[in-house]
This record gives sequence, C-alpha cells and structure tokens, in this order.
Amino acid sequence: MTLNYPNGKPYRDERARWKPPSVAGYANRGMTLEDDLNATNEYYREHGIAIVHKKPTPVQIVRVDYPKRSAAVIKEAYFRQASTTDYNGVYRGKYIDFEAKETRNQTAFPLKNFHAHQIRHMEQVVAHGGVCFAILRFSSLQETYLLDASHLITRWNEQQSGGRKSIPKREIEQLGHYIPLGCQPRIDYISVVERVYFTLSGENS
Amino acid sequence: MTLNYPNGKPYRDERARWKPPSVAGYANRGMTLEDDLNATNEYYREHGIAIVHKKPTPVQIVRVDYPKRSAAVIKEAYFRQASTTDYNGVYRGKYIDFEAKETRNQTAFPLKNFHAHQIRHMEQVVAHGGVCFAILRFSSLQETYLLDASHLITRWNEQQSGGRKSIPKREIEQLGHYIPLGCQPRIDYISVVERVYFTLSGENS
Repeated sequence: MTLNYPNGKPYRDERARWKPPSVAGYANRGMTLEDDLNATNEYYREHGIAIVHKKPTPVQIVRVDYPKRSAAVIKEAYFRQASTTDYNGVYRGKYIDFEAKETRNQTAFPLKNFHAHQIRHMEQVVAHGGVCFAILRFSSLQETYLLDASHLITRWNEQQSGGRKSIPKREIEQLGHYIPLGCQPRIDYISVVERVYFTLSGENS
Repeated sequence: MTLNYPNGKPYRDERARWKPPSVAGYANRGMTLEDDLNATNEYYREHGIAIVHKKPTPVQIVRVDYPKRSAAVIKEAYFRQASTTDYNGVYRGKYIDFEAKETRNQTAFPLKNFHAHQIRHMEQVVAHGGVCFAILRFSSLQETYLLDASHLITRWNEQQSGGRKSIPKREIEQLGHYIPLGCQPRIDYISVVERVYFTLSGENS
C-alpha cells in the first residue's frame, strides 16, 4: 500500500530511506548522518534558530593549474587529518562545537571513530566554556544520541591507559540524550542543547 | 648593526620581515596577514587564552585516485567560494567570528575584498549574539584594525544601493580599533575583543 502526504507526495519512511554507510571505504563512512546534519543546519539558519556550519574537508594542495579563460584546477592534493571537530557555530551567543559519527555496531560505540586531535580540541573548548558534545548514531538501529564531550573525553583517556576501546550503548543511553529523528529538522539537536545546556543548567553562564 | 635578543637569536624587525602581498594573483593575496593570524591563534591556544582556528579552504573534489599502498590523491578539484568567514572559535564561552583582509590601498578599504555570502553570514552571527568583526590591514602602511561587523554591514548595504565602494581609512580609525603589531602574539586581537566586547559593554551577555 502506498501512503501519500495530503499534498499528494508519497510518504517516505525515514527507515526505508536510510542507506547503510557504503562499504567502499572510509570516504563514504557517515555520509548519511552528514546529509541529515547539513539539512538540519540549513533549517536552523533559515529559521533563525542557530548558525552552525560543517567545516570544509581539510586538504593539502600541492599543484594547481591556471588554464587561460577558465577556473583554476587543483591537480594534486591530499586529505589532511582535521585538527578540530567538524561542526561549530553560535546558538544564543554561546559557542557550539561538535563531532558527528556513526557506527553499525549495535551494542557499543567504538572510540576509534575519533582522533586524538579531536579529543584534545574538545578538551580545549570545554575549558573555554563552549558547549561541546558528540552526536553518535547507531546506524543499523536508527538511534541517535547527543553525548556531552566530558563523557567522551573520560572514556577516551581511560582507553589510553588500557581501558575499553568502546563506549557501551547502555552507558550512552544513560549519560547521553536521545535525539528523535524528525522531518523538519531531521535531527533536532538544538532542542536537546537548549534543554541540557541552557534550561537544566540554569543558563550555564 | 645587528641586534640580538638576550638568547643570542637575531632581532628581526616586524617591519623588515614584512613581505608585501605577491602580485602573482588572487591566490597569494593576504598570505602574510594569514600567517600572522595563524601564529597568533596558535599562541592563544597554547596559552589557554582562546580557541580560534582558520577554516580549511573549501574545495569541490571531483576525482580521487586510490593508489595501492599509498595515500589517496585528489586529481581534480576546484576552489569553492566560502559561505562563511574564515575564522571562528570560542573566547570566554562566547562565539567569536571574523574575516581578515588586507589592502595595499592607503586611504580606504575596498569593499570588493568581501563577498555577499560573508556579509550575510556576519549579519546572522550578529543576530545570534556572537562577537563578529573584521580584521583589516593596510599592508603598505603596516596598520591593522578591528572593525565591528555592524559597520562593515552598513557600508556594504549602502554600496549595494549605490554608495561608495570602499570604507575611508579615517572612518576605520574612528569606528574601529587599532591593533598594534607585536611579537608574541603578533596580532593581539583578543585584547581588543576583551576591551570592546566584554569590558566596555558590561559583559555583553
């Protein structure tokens, strides 16, 4: 049976629309979470809710051709490891900073999804009073959580001294905050930020 | 006469070290101001003063080779126009956002150094309570100023409706804030931010 919205457009179940991350390799990993966040951030900007952008992929440019009468072409470049998280911006004057990752693992979130540079950056942002967290998606379960950076940093540091290499899903459920999948916006993480960092913490300033 | 620091390293006059922007073209324009800001931001991070990074250059990647046993090589890519300013980060919990530009003009700062997207982004940041400004350098005069985004936005909008295509230097001196060139850090813009946006405005929160 085909369901339609009142405007006649076919109803598309978020779960049916979901494509698992490509197995082709690293480059495609997390693509769909990124798409959802880009759409969400665009919604936030258009509706004056928050100004958050994904940072461009860092690239080391080695060779550029300048053909006559057309745009410069980069002919040789390499991917660089990011020294910060991927997303940052402003919400109610405060600095917002986060990293977004997904896993197909169903019971725990592997810490290898993060780099030492990113954790170090998160520590700095927390020290300077910024709002800092990770958006973690269990992609095969369709579940997305916001986890404050402090928990991620603790688990990361424990791992460095021989602790476990992942965060159990149960712990993320307890310490983190579930972000329901929506339509507009798709991942309304700012509602969670508002509740956790502004309302509950008594304005956190 | 050669001057040395007490540690024996030669004293290098900031003015002597200054290289004028290359005339080779757009790609090199502003390189030295960028160098100074990168060094300044590194100093701020290392000394726990603020966390500010330059965003990577946005690049549209078209073709990537994945050679066996070596890193992926980007074989075709193009420069994209940035949709935001180049620098952002956190200082005392607040969101900081700015663009940095230099001109060899000695009497006025041409507005063509900015793109419509950047001005639009600045308007949004101001609307959301972020600290937003431009760092403007008159490179042949060795003078650098911090100008609040509101002034830049006003002049930009006037230009759109037939107003002048540059901001007179006298106006920048009056409305902006001179940033002395230093050694460590080279461009201490955070001292100006502290004074203008935190101290003078009564914490601005």
